[in-house]
Amino acid sequence: MSEVLERLAEVLEQRKGADSSASYVAGLYAKGLDRILKKVAEEAAETLLAAKDGDSEHLVHEIADLWFHCLVLLAHQGLGPAAVLAELDRRFGLSGLEEKAARR
Amino acid sequence: MSEVLERLAEVLEQRKGADSSASYVAGLYAKGLDRILKKVAEEAAETLLAAKDGDSEHLVHEIADLWFHCLVLLAHQGLGPAAVLAELDRRFGLSGLEEKAARR
Amino acid sequence: MSEVLERLAEVLEQRKGADSSASYVAGLYAKGLDRILKKVAEEAAETLLAAKDGDSEHLVHEIADLWFHCLVLLAHQGLGPAAVLAELDRRFGLSGLEEKAARR
Amino acid sequence: MSEVLERLAEVLEQRKGADSSASYVAGLYAKGLDRILKKVAEEAAETLLAAKDGDSEHLVHEIADLWFHCLVLLAHQGLGPAAVLAELDRRFGLSGLEEKAARR
Repeated sequence: MSEVLERLAEVLEQRKGADSSASYVAGLYAKGLDRILKKVAEEAAETLLAAKDGDSEHLVHEIADLWFHCLVLLAHQGLGPAAVLAELDRRFGLSGLEEKAARR
Repeated sequence: MSEVLERLAEVLEQRKGADSSASYVAGLYAKGLDRILKKVAEEAAETLLAAKDGDSEHLVHEIADLWFHCLVLLAHQGLGPAAVLAELDRRFGLSGLEEKAARR
Repeated sequence: MSEVLERLAEVLEQRKGADSSASYVAGLYAKGLDRILKKVAEEAAETLLAAKDGDSEHLVHEIADLWFHCLVLLAHQGLGPAAVLAELDRRFGLSGLEEKAARR
Repeated sequence: MSEVLERLAEVLEQRKGADSSASYVAGLYAKGLDRILKKVAEEAAETLLAAKDGDSEHLVHEIADLWFHCLVLLAHQGLGPAAVLAELDRRFGLSGLEEKAARR
């Protein structure tokens, strides 16, 4: 299931050549970094609201929207989900959760 | 690589029985939903700041922090990353990016 | 100059009876609390972006937008800016900044 | 009541010369722009959570915190609340709310 992030990253890469009026993502790229960041902030806020409502289905949708726009942000910056997953893996390899606690 | 989300979700599940003073995540669970949501909002803001600085390494770290706290939120609500990945898969299966554009 | 907040609060109160299709604020009231909160979150994010750009004029505009939507939120909840200003006054009366530090 | 913003701005200006270990605000200045922006984002998120809880007293406190950190941000950038109030006054002078609607 989780290879979906890699497949999605490939599609986001391909969209860099697409017509900005025909593709939502190509439109975001064309509007630039600030517009993508506003979407990340917006979806984070909607995640908070859905969680406060205790609505599981809505919460899953909003986190999907949030992660999706993080993937768009990564692609826009020439990065991808592999770097994020590698960082999570590095940090939470064995006793990673405690490492994080120590880091803070 | 991307099975890291599933492995991390398992660890987060196990932390539900841990001592809240010994584990960062158990501490977050004990402090409750609002505290977890504040961390999600905080990491989203730090993602914006890192992106504006154009610092790729910092950006990857902040998105890792953001996704991590989303996983904690999902676990706290009795959910997991599989539901989010399934939603992303469903939405961006074939012509999904266009479906999203239409949905908005 | 600063009585502008009170005057604005009066206008926001009057808008409660207005046609939601004719007034931006009446439209926000009609869409409800979550929509107003999304605007507060959005304007906070835009404040961050303007500040990172070091664009003073843009920053002033975004903080004006942020405060404006806070006033809409207060009005929607049956509150007003006087309560916020009284809280600021109480907290920062004499040695209030230090009181805040202690409070944290 | 609302001259409290101007008085507070004066205090914030004076704090620029204060010892960063003795004053909360001087400490924020010393930590720099990103730290102040994180506080703005954090208080905006807490405003959302308080509003969703329907807790009026908590909401007023969080909006006070949000406005306070906006004032710190303005001071750090060599600005003040007068510019924000003038912008609100300009925008919502007569039929300003409709002007805003048009502007969007």
